[in-house]
Amino acid sequence: MKVQFFTAEEIRNTLTMPRAIELMRGAFARLSAGKVDSPVRTVLTNESGTVLYKPAFSASENLFCAKVVSVFPGNAKQSLPVTPGIIVVNDGETGMPIALLEAGYLTALRTGAATGLATDLLAKKDATVAALFGTGGQAWHQLEAMLCVRRLKRVYVFSRKTANAHRFCGQHADKTMSCELVSTDNHSVLSDCDIITTATTSSEPVFQNSEIGEAVHINAVGSLGPHRSEIPPETILRSTVVVDQRVGCLTEAGEILPLIADGRLPESFTPPELGELVADNEYKPERPITVFKSAGNAIQDLVCSAEILKLADENNIGNSIDL
Amino acid sequence: MKVQFFTAEEIRNTLTMPRAIELMRGAFARLSAGKVDSPVRTVLTNESGTVLYKPAFSASENLFCAKVVSVFPGNAKQSLPVTPGIIVVNDGETGMPIALLEAGYLTALRTGAATGLATDLLAKKDATVAALFGTGGQAWHQLEAMLCVRRLKRVYVFSRKTANAHRFCGQHADKTMSCELVSTDNHSVLSDCDIITTATTSSEPVFQNSEIGEAVHINAVGSLGPHRSEIPPETILRSTVVVDQRVGCLTEAGEILPLIADGRLPESFTPPELGELVADNEYKPERPITVFKSAGNAIQDLVCSAEILKLADENNIGNSIDL
Repeated sequence: MKVQFFTAEEIRNTLTMPRAIELMRGAFARLSAGKVDSPVRTVLTNESGTVLYKPAFSASENLFCAKVVSVFPGNAKQSLPVTPGIIVVNDGETGMPIALLEAGYLTALRTGAATGLATDLLAKKDATVAALFGTGGQAWHQLEAMLCVRRLKRVYVFSRKTANAHRFCGQHADKTMSCELVSTDNHSVLSDCDIITTATTSSEPVFQNSEIGEAVHINAVGSLGPHRSEIPPETILRSTVVVDQRVGCLTEAGEILPLIADGRLPESFTPPELGELVADNEYKPERPITVFKSAGNAIQDLVCSAEILKLADENNIGNSIDL
Repeated sequence: MKVQFFTAEEIRNTLTMPRAIELMRGAFARLSAGKVDSPVRTVLTNESGTVLYKPAFSASENLFCAKVVSVFPGNAKQSLPVTPGIIVVNDGETGMPIALLEAGYLTALRTGAATGLATDLLAKKDATVAALFGTGGQAWHQLEAMLCVRRLKRVYVFSRKTANAHRFCGQHADKTMSCELVSTDNHSVLSDCDIITTATTSSEPVFQNSEIGEAVHINAVGSLGPHRSEIPPETILRSTVVVDQRVGCLTEAGEILPLIADGRLPESFTPPELGELVADNEYKPERPITVFKSAGNAIQDLVCSAEILKLADENNIGNSIDL
């Protein structure tokens, strides 16, 4: 049984962000059209952390794909990844396991790519200024995704520790072309921002409703949970909310659930899905402030894995084990 | 990220059947005691087959384990395994994926080992004659398990095609020590059998109720499904039924469900679990005919994987990839 495997480095060298964003377009369109089988993930927990099993099948690629991803906050102290993971791909014709992929890099890439797609669909076409909250493992891909879809001139980078924001800007300055990265803790710049992306582990809003401008697209991609929200409720209430998948966001998103619970949003609250926007060329958000909230879906991992397998085959990348 | 991997051959050379049977003793005791987290498997299906995702966590080993196993009947025509699979093991302390194991051999081994444990707990101590129905991928391990727990002198081997039974006996004769393997299609020998193990893909009973003796232990390990039964209903009704796990067998076993549906077994039918027998030194089945019905549980894969990792570490077995 020959099983190919792909390291983070090989994935980085194979799948680009622009291509990943294009893949998300098809993936979310098919997810919203009910053409993907991605059942509820299985969650196992012990005292140190959680392991999530996220399987999916997609007929277009004729592949089964399962991501096994762990969330072990204590790993940071041991210089281990906090969310290590592995993806298992099975062929749709024979069921044979055909590939294994390191999941950490791919998760960051595909999560960024969803932000890229949402930003492309919802942000002003002439957006030039953005803000990024968070400088952790997801941050670069979130920034890269914004840069792929809009000609940004300046991105303000916020972190709980200003030193981290400074370090992040230094690390990535040479990859942003003509876009200037500015580390800051001055929230007064937020009113200038056309796009704000929050990718933090904060359970509290990372900015105040009064600080943002009258027309801004916000991507809320930080950690998910019914009691966590990086975005102020007042901002949610005056925005058009778009989600990656209703079933996930309406059971898990702390940006939405408390507002339904206390009656500030109706019980029948039905935000459009990203895939519905893709399919609707006429779509215009009702309000000038838009919020994209993502829960993440295994189809994102599947379409990226499928593309990596295809590109690897064409370019003779990756190794294999005989199992 | 260093991930060890183990081929079928390495697993074969590392974990013996007697040791696997001992592992099942602890595994099923803990499963029945509620000390194992093995949630309902996830099933994805396309037109060619099914992929099952079976995760588990066990605190004693402090390991997470997930088997990804496919059932693609058409594979036989292409000389591919019909149930190919892979096991992913994650460390309980860090969540890191630490090992991959070929799942086909291990599944056959652990399924045999459960039969070995059930036979040890339920068959006559002085059993000497057994029958084996089926000569497919599971058959040898079922036979080996019976041989491990009882000093059998003769085993009758039945197959839909007599030639297969003949071939099977020839292939394995030199591994059964003083036990004679006899290929036959003559059901009159069944009345002499102390143990009968059915490991077929048949959806219909493979023998008749009138053909078996008054005191016999039966292992029904063939394919599972609410409309499949290798055992005649009359035999079930006059036997003490023991299951590996009630939740699985009472939702899936075709040996039991139709009998509850038509009122021949009570709605409240509560067969004991194998693990309850392990924990109860005083246990005696109520009836001289016993039937062990297994649905299989991910904890079996977990304890075997844990043991292989331990033995591999001690004996420097297996290879690894940097992922």
